Amino acid sequence: MPEIRQNLATKEWVVISTERAKRPEDFKVEKEKKVLSEKSDKCPFCPGNEHMTPYESFVINDENNKWKIRVVPNKYPAVIPEGTVQYKMEGIKRTVSGVGIAEVIIESAIHNQIIPLMPEKDVQQIVYTYKERYQAAEKDKRVKMIIVFKNYGEAAGASIEHPHSQLIAIPVVPFHIRYRIEEAMRYYDETGECVFCKILNEELKSAERIVVETGSFVTFVPYAALSPFHMWILPRRHMESFSDINENEISDLAKNLKLTLSKLYYGLNNPDFNFVIRSVPVNEKGREYYHWYITIMPRLIKTAGFEIGTAMSINSSFPENDAKFLREIKVR
Amino acid sequence: MPEIRQNLATKEWVVISTERAKRPEDFKVEKEKKVLSEKSDKCPFCPGNEHMTPYESFVINDENNKWKIRVVPNKYPAVIPEGTVQYKMEGIKRTVSGVGIAEVIIESAIHNQIIPLMPEKDVQQIVYTYKERYQAAEKDKRVKMIIVFKNYGEAAGASIEHPHSQLIAIPVVPFHIRYRIEEAMRYYDETGECVFCKILNEELKSAERIVVETGSFVTFVPYAALSPFHMWILPRRHMESFSDINENEISDLAKNLKLTLSKLYYGLNNPDFNFVIRSVPVNEKGREYYHWYITIMPRLIKTAGFEIGTAMSINSSFPENDAKFLREIKVR
Repeated sequence: MPEIRQNLATKEWVVISTERAKRPEDFKVEKEKKVLSEKSDKCPFCPGNEHMTPYESFVINDENNKWKIRVVPNKYPAVIPEGTVQYKMEGIKRTVSGVGIAEVIIESAIHNQIIPLMPEKDVQQIVYTYKERYQAAEKDKRVKMIIVFKNYGEAAGASIEHPHSQLIAIPVVPFHIRYRIEEAMRYYDETGECVFCKILNEELKSAERIVVETGSFVTFVPYAALSPFHMWILPRRHMESFSDINENEISDLAKNLKLTLSKLYYGLNNPDFNFVIRSVPVNEKGREYYHWYITIMPRLIKTAGFEIGTAMSINSSFPENDAKFLREIKVR
Repeated sequence: MPEIRQNLATKEWVVISTERAKRPEDFKVEKEKKVLSEKSDKCPFCPGNEHMTPYESFVINDENNKWKIRVVPNKYPAVIPEGTVQYKMEGIKRTVSGVGIAEVIIESAIHNQIIPLMPEKDVQQIVYTYKERYQAAEKDKRVKMIIVFKNYGEAAGASIEHPHSQLIAIPVVPFHIRYRIEEAMRYYDETGECVFCKILNEELKSAERIVVETGSFVTFVPYAALSPFHMWILPRRHMESFSDINENEISDLAKNLKLTLSKLYYGLNNPDFNFVIRSVPVNEKGREYYHWYITIMPRLIKTAGFEIGTAMSINSSFPENDAKFLREIKVR
């Protein structure tokens, strides 16, 4: 019988489908990705083409004074940096001005570089850059919420091949985030515990959905995973904001992220994916009941009318099987 | 400057992007759809292949006693018909048994038929069938929520080409639906009005986002449309459940739906889309503050990390432009 599972923290429901069940190996990507060269003349993120992007807001250079990581304002930003936050309400028309920050983090000077194949030290610099830019965005008084994310591959909405991630800082807290915080607060009020710490402890105890364990972070397929190979990377230390990650944790997250993404890369043949750092709204640090984490969503299936109508998901793969499959993948 | 708009009823936020703005005609589908024949030997929904589907639960025949519409249990159902609803909670593991109804509504015996090209009378029979099956599902005491939807085209998650829609009845009310109801209730308590009636009245008054008006239904692009050409079809009469649609309204909805989908078909060159009938949970009829409607989502863009992280959307087309463009499309 299919099981409808609920995530204890987010309250999201997912149908774990027995009638459409597939094996983890059925999700291996068959279509080969286009082979990319190390450099592309037309790529706005490649060295030599710096004039094709706005001026950088942050840069990390190598020992020869050439850039390794560049952060630039998004040329086609969702929200723009100039202006003040103004709310308008006229009848049914409710708007807030679209001001904020939209940055692109160019992760490497090499056009075809990817995290699974990068030296761990380079991944550390990417994570360090995420923190640096997150903290810079926090200082902007207009910003209520900061999202750091990566779109990898066409199915994940990436329009440029060169390795990059993004930061978007917006002047509102979406109601969806509010509801998560409210649920976490309710759990805390009822039990005295952070619901994410609770989940982490139980996952470690049962071990059946664990994918990667490093010193400060744990990767697992959530009990109510929304789609095949959906994963969470949780810091072991209780922290509500990504902004509070320390130096050791940056190194360890780099190690974990590289290993987790490598397992996807080798195990499923380089699938498209998104990852998102989910952190507390910027003005609400110090909440004992919230916990930041990274969600990774490989884009292996299509959503349809049922998902639109219910905001539930249908997962045709068993979280336990997905985790076991990835645990056993040897990373070269 | 980009505008962040909020839907008054659902509280969903969308960034109406000025920096990535496109014109409505930019969304025309360029890739030609595969040309289908009237009949396909391998199609499980074609006449002659009835043995390839489970036995029908409902059928409408033509004057020669051949079926025109067939409703069959889904061969790969998300939820299954046998069993009782059982809740289990063990630590972080929360589940409900996946029982309920999953039906496929085969809309025509003709393999390549589509609503825009169908006689209006045939569309009436489809809408009639939706109501009949909705009411049948309501009688199942295990069912809390019924979703009727259509996936059209690969990008919309359709795996079979033959024209069909689906009904799924589930034993839980997803929290996402709860929140919508709660918001509608709050608005009602504060103003004495149904928020959907309010929106409908204001849309009719301003007229700038209206696409199609028929006797009992109005199609418009919502002020905070989540994506290009996102539309709502609202009944003019205040009704919280699709189950309460009357005979005149069935005819009028068929007229409206055919016209609305025809405008998409001719205007955007046959795009993939989903539509969903959003109705109140089955045991909660009689709520004065809720209003059923149809949401239509053409699948013209890809969602990415920002959408996953915020549950907000980025719409690179102006709702007012989309509505004007569709209003002006002549339907042959």
